[in-house]
This record gives sequence, structure tokens and C-alpha cells, in this order.
Amino acid sequence: MSILVHDPDLKRVRPVLTAVRERAPLVHCLSAAVSMGIVADGLLAAGARPMMTETLDEAPHMVTLANALLINLGTLSTDGSEGIPATVEAAQGLGLPWVLDPAAVGIAPVRTAMARRLLKRHPAVVRANASEVLALTGEAGGRGADSTAVPDEAVRAARQVSALTGGVVAISGVEDLLIDARRELRVARGTPLLTRVTGTGCLLGALTAACLGAGAAPLEAADAATVWIAVAGELAETRAPRPGSFRTALLDSLDEVAL
Amino acid sequence: MSILVHDPDLKRVRPVLTAVRERAPLVHCLSAAVSMGIVADGLLAAGARPMMTETLDEAPHMVTLANALLINLGTLSTDGSEGIPATVEAAQGLGLPWVLDPAAVGIAPVRTAMARRLLKRHPAVVRANASEVLALTGEAGGRGADSTAVPDEAVRAARQVSALTGGVVAISGVEDLLIDARRELRVARGTPLLTRVTGTGCLLGALTAACLGAGAAPLEAADAATVWIAVAGELAETRAPRPGSFRTALLDSLDEVAL
Amino acid sequence: MSILVHDPDLKRVRPVLTAVRERAPLVHCLSAAVSMGIVADGLLAAGARPMMTETLDEAPHMVTLANALLINLGTLSTDGSEGIPATVEAAQGLGLPWVLDPAAVGIAPVRTAMARRLLKRHPAVVRANASEVLALTGEAGGRGADSTAVPDEAVRAARQVSALTGGVVAISGVEDLLIDARRELRVARGTPLLTRVTGTGCLLGALTAACLGAGAAPLEAADAATVWIAVAGELAETRAPRPGSFRTALLDSLDEVAL
Repeated sequence: MSILVHDPDLKRVRPVLTAVRERAPLVHCLSAAVSMGIVADGLLAAGARPMMTETLDEAPHMVTLANALLINLGTLSTDGSEGIPATVEAAQGLGLPWVLDPAAVGIAPVRTAMARRLLKRHPAVVRANASEVLALTGEAGGRGADSTAVPDEAVRAARQVSALTGGVVAISGVEDLLIDARRELRVARGTPLLTRVTGTGCLLGALTAACLGAGAAPLEAADAATVWIAVAGELAETRAPRPGSFRTALLDSLDEVAL
Repeated sequence: MSILVHDPDLKRVRPVLTAVRERAPLVHCLSAAVSMGIVADGLLAAGARPMMTETLDEAPHMVTLANALLINLGTLSTDGSEGIPATVEAAQGLGLPWVLDPAAVGIAPVRTAMARRLLKRHPAVVRANASEVLALTGEAGGRGADSTAVPDEAVRAARQVSALTGGVVAISGVEDLLIDARRELRVARGTPLLTRVTGTGCLLGALTAACLGAGAAPLEAADAATVWIAVAGELAETRAPRPGSFRTALLDSLDEVAL
Repeated sequence: MSILVHDPDLKRVRPVLTAVRERAPLVHCLSAAVSMGIVADGLLAAGARPMMTETLDEAPHMVTLANALLINLGTLSTDGSEGIPATVEAAQGLGLPWVLDPAAVGIAPVRTAMARRLLKRHPAVVRANASEVLALTGEAGGRGADSTAVPDEAVRAARQVSALTGGVVAISGVEDLLIDARRELRVARGTPLLTRVTGTGCLLGALTAACLGAGAAPLEAADAATVWIAVAGELAETRAPRPGSFRTALLDSLDEVAL
């Protein structure tokens, strides 16, 4: 714990983590089926509260209760593809901040068109890997949830997306790149073990939404969420170097790091 | 273990836990997508067996194999909203006991109407938080899966629901209130950590169905399931005070407590 | 670890495990909603990569990226029942090896007809319990995900299925039976704890697909996956004898066994 107290990245983002713990923002997640569990448990561990309904009939009503919205296109069900546009529209009407995670965009036809349309609804943060950012601007395809490009290759595309949304583009990689109209922030933290657990990228998007829901500005929220999960991952790795127990330790560490 | 042997609540409900271990009831769960994992793993840890199909085409057929049914409206998919009424009708026709968990009722339009209609199908137990019980009778809204009301505020509404169903209403809170036509039981056990893991409320509903499926009467089943998860939670907390490892320890403890 | 080195079953299948670690095959899984988490995390722990999209609009496109395909009928959603036939057809057209896990076939009407039709699309491996194998040939029903028959009762039916598919039928039980046109392999490894965690059967199917995706022949792939999860289970049991922590230890052991 004493090490964490002196961590300079954690020190920078601590006010945002504290705000999440104090305000317990309700984060409406229309997220990949496969990672719903880690997203919901990760939000609870962080001190936020998840809500996961995705149907067209209910999600646009439920979002009125939320403090922030996460849209993750990971496994895009029919319910999700019908419910997402109306829920984002409702969130925008309410002035709710929202995060777009265009998982696997580029290959899958429905989500590629949808993601590009959703950019016009001004997501506060777009969180994606480099291949996905390139695909958003039509420059490249993706390969499942993995990235074949590195963040620096996607900088130009990210600036283009940021110009369109007016928000932040957070490019995940070994070094994360957080970009808005004027600034560029680099966070080189974390552990490769984070890529050996399903849904840690989805959870990063959800934590970003939680930080927005607690009042952080887009760049500040993206920075805080990126540091939060990366430092928690580093701490978890010291305790659990294999993927099953690492997943459990990561959730514990999200809790521990925030206190 | 010696402490568990002398726990008075556990002593009271032990015959039901033993019946679940011996009969291994098959519990058909039409449950929230986000908590399917903990519901299924929790049932297995408890000694019961889960079955999760929810489509209109298959669920009403599958329920004929089951010993009990759980309906949880948590993230109500289109498949679920189509499959639930017919599956409940089939269960009722077979004389199967069933549990209704009207998660997030009050806000979401589809599930609110559905939950009120389902009450007429005589669920043996309705398990809900105080806000949800109030919403069932039209007295209040809810706020996601959280409750803003406390159990005692919902007693009148619970009696009203119980009069309609002829069964038990189990109101979850810091102190749980179990109500039927004539009796009122209070269980003040558990740990706040149970609210920091997704789906523990859904799991309580599933365990209640397992107890019914093993032959317990409604009030007895609600009591046994409430004590089971609460005592398991207390035991887990002594071993794992953070949410990730607490979830794992909770599943271990459900197994340990039942032996 | 030294014990693992001298394990004769593990020694036999090690080249396949090494191929999975080196090639990191992308496994497209149209799988049961309840076990998506353990399937995806288990594939990652094993060194493979999961992809889970199941809609008709997207799954047949996504499968073009994959090295192998898993079809698991566990909780068959409407999206799945629409997407599966077209995705299998696309996979067959690409010459991708695929695994059929006809979970709960026999009772549920949609999946029973679908599973029989899918057999004509030449799955490299059909993985099922004895009741499910019997149901595939119309000889018996199933009971949820559990089996009431033992592998030896299903040998004749398995030969019939193998004659139709030209591939392997892997019958799960206390002793697993792997059958193709000419050969019969028996693997009597593992632990009953594997039946107390949701989705370990689904994960076995996914690991089989991963082995196929890494270049193994069908019988070799079924053998390797069966030994992999069984030995990992045995190792996990020595460390975690209750179901919650066993699930975590199983994922750790899948990683450890493969190195």
C-alpha cells in the first residue's frame, strides 16, 4: 500500500478515483455478452454501480437513471444492435457522458456502420485498440478483439475521430495513447496478463464511463481509468502470475487501489 | 466448521440444505445475462443443478425436466420476454414451484407490466428489494438493481402481494423480511460485501428455487436460502475481504456450509 | 511441475499443446451464454484466442478470420439459432475445422433438429455426453446438461455418428471415449470437481477446437483437449478442493500444464 501512495500516476488520478468511490455513479452498460461479468464486477469493485439492460423497449428508459453510458460492440446481439442507437440518442438528449468501445469494428459489417454513425453522437471518449481506430476512419480492418497495429500508427486516425466527436480517443496498447483536440497523454503501465483475461478492455471502457459519471472531464476520465486498471493489474500480477487467479486479484486490486 | 455447527440459524435450516444436497434438484433459470455465471456456479456449489435456456421455442419444453423454476427479470432480453410467460404457464401446469425475482421493476416498462401479470401465476416466493416490492403494487419506482427503500417500508405492499400470490414475499435488505399470509420472519445476517459482487441477489432467488425443488415449503425455502447465502457470505468475508476473492470464497462457502 | 513432466498422457499430447501456445489459434465460439466467460478465459489461459459473435448478420463474416469454430447448443438463443447454420456453412466453405457440442440435445426441439442437420456439415469432432450421443441418433433423450447414460452405452451410436461425419465422436464421462472410423481411445483422467463448475464441458469443446485450429488431426485434437483439461483439473484439485476456488485454479492450471 505504501508503494501505491507514492505512485506518481496514481497520485495524479487519485481525485477521480475518490470521486467514483464517493458518488458511486450508475453506469449503464450495453456491452459484450462474454464480458458482462467482469464489467459488472469490476465496476462494483471500483465503487461504481452497473446496469446492463440492452433492449430497445427498455434500455432508452433505463438510461435516464444513469450517470454515464458505455456502448461496447464486442459481441453485438440483435437486442444490442436495436437498442444501442436509441439509448445513445436518449443519453445525448439528457447530456449524459458516454463511452464508445467499437470492439472488432472493421470486419463485422453491422458494427462497422453503426460505430461510424455513433461517432456523430459525440462520445466523450472512444476507447479502442489501434486497428479499431484505423477501422473507424476506414483505413484498416481488425482481427477479432486483437490489434495488429500499434498505437502510434493510429495517431492521425485518432485525431480525425477526435475532431469529429469533440472528445477523447484512448488507444490501448503496450503504451496507451490518450488524444484530444490539443493534447496527447501517454500511459505506459500495466502487464501483459491483462490481455490473458477476457473483457479487461471492456472493463477499461466501463471504468472510463464511471469516471465520467463521477464528474471527470473526458481526458481526465480516460487517464484515470487507464491508470486505475493498469496499476491494479501490476499489483495483481505480484500476487497471482497466472490468468485465473490474476482475474480475481485484479478485481481485488481495483478495490484496493481506489482506497 | 465447529462454529457453523452451532450456528442457530444454520441449525434451523439445515434439513433443507441437506435435502438439496441429497436430491440435487434441477433448477430452470430464466435469469439476467450478467449473473448467469454466478447463478449456475452457485447452484452447483450448493448441490443443485442449473439449466438456463430461455427461448419461447425451447424453454417451455425444457421446464418439464425441472424441479423448480427461477424467473429473474434482471436484464430481460427479447428471448426472455417472449419465453418467460409461456415457461411460467408450463411450470404452473406441472405444479412446479417457482420464484419470481422482479429485478429493476418499476422503471423498465416491459418488465413492470410482465411482473404484475406473473403475480397471478402464483409464484411460491417473490424475492425482491423493498423498492421493487413497492413497485409491484404501483407504489414506487426502483433505481437499477439497488433499493432506495428499506424492508419495513414495504411490509404493507408485501402483504398485498402475498395475498395475491398465496405465497411468500422475501424482501432483501440489511435485515431480510420474509412474509406470508400469517407469518413474518426476520433474518439479520450476511455482509455488505454481498452487495459488491454482481448477481448475489439473483443467486439468492436461485437458491430459493433449489430449496423449493428439494421439497421445502415456501417460507422454509426462503428462510433456508437467505440463511445459506448470508452465512456463506460471513464465512467468506473472514477469508477474503475484497470483492474479487470474496466472490470465489462465497462459492466455496456455499459448498462448505451445506455439508 | 516435475510430476507433470513425467505424466504419460501429457507427454503424448504435449506437441499439440505446444502448437496451441505457438500458433495462438483464433477460435470462433457460438456457445452457451452461461459459459461464455469460462470458455473465453479458458481459451486465453490455454494460449488460444476467443471470438464470440453469433448473429446471422455478423458471425458468418467473422468466421473468415478464425482458425477453428466451436458450435455449442447449450442455451441456444434466437441469435444463435439463426446464426449457427450460416456460420457452419461458411466455415465448411473455408475448410475450417469445427467442433459440435450438441448440449441438451434430445429434449429441446429446435436444437435436436438443428444438431442432426449440422452433422451433415462434417464436424471434425462431436463432443457430447453419452445421453446426447444417443439423442443424436434418436435413441434417447437427455436431461439438461447432465448425462444419465454412460459412455459405453453410446458406442454404437457414436460409430453411427462418426460414419456420417467422417470425424471423431468424443463421449465425456468418468472415462472419456474417443471414437473415429477405425480407432477407440480411452482417457480415464480428471476429477468430479469438473462437474461442479459450469461450462467445463463447453470449455473442453473449445479447447478441442483450439487444438484443431493449431493443426492437430481430429482424434489427436480430441485426445489433447481431453487430457489437457483433465490433468489441469487434477492439478487444480490438489490446490483448491471446493468449486469456487477450483474454477480459478483450473484456469491457472490450463496455463501451467501447457508450458
